[in-house]
Amino acid sequence: MSWLDDVRFDADGLVPAIAQEAGTGRILMVAWMNREALAETAATGRAVYWSRSRQRLWRKGEESGHVQTVRELRLDCDADVVLLEVEQLGGIACHTGRHSCFFRRLEDGEWREVDPVLKDPEAIYR
Amino acid sequence: MSWLDDVRFDADGLVPAIAQEAGTGRILMVAWMNREALAETAATGRAVYWSRSRQRLWRKGEESGHVQTVRELRLDCDADVVLLEVEQLGGIACHTGRHSCFFRRLEDGEWREVDPVLKDPEAIYR
Repeated sequence: MSWLDDVRFDADGLVPAIAQEAGTGRILMVAWMNREALAETAATGRAVYWSRSRQRLWRKGEESGHVQTVRELRLDCDADVVLLEVEQLGGIACHTGRHSCFFRRLEDGEWREVDPVLKDPEAIYR
Repeated sequence: MSWLDDVRFDADGLVPAIAQEAGTGRILMVAWMNREALAETAATGRAVYWSRSRQRLWRKGEESGHVQTVRELRLDCDADVVLLEVEQLGGIACHTGRHSCFFRRLEDGEWREVDPVLKDPEAIYR
């Protein structure tokens, strides 16, 4: 019996994983994990997700260098969402070059981009 | 064209919604929203989710009294996750009577309950 057996993966074998920045508490991103990704994350201390678009393990930072070091893993009451406390290397989690993926805020009936691009994505994914 | 059209609901018409506490930055819970829940949340300023188990709108706090007042709504880069900044009435988001649903932490290969029950669930759901 492993702690992995307590996690209720969905019909596709996935759970949502929230990356929250240590210190600031900012939500950096939400991605998905399968059992293998979660096991590797816990074993290595680096965030590993399952890329639904590419249908393969996605070791966060493998292309961008924006690795996430995991300080803590939490599970919710329904055991179907994982919360990671991470340190974000380079201070950029989003593929758009922003600190967080949640850079749009609802204002007056539209989504406004309220956080700056810190680095040109073309410079990140050379 | 509405801001709701920018949101990419999944095949079931749902998006995950993260409730983060204003001030503390704590992640309180993750639930799901359909278009109607998201529209009502924005219109009323109170968090409304879609209950997958009950297959109906779930106005958070309707039974427990633990209403969430929404201060801000954000959308991620893929437009498929919503982040709510909320004030949690009663300081309890979880149906177990805890502040947050993420009360289990991975320690030495097992999930340990690390946050206290603040109120007996039987007293909450009378």
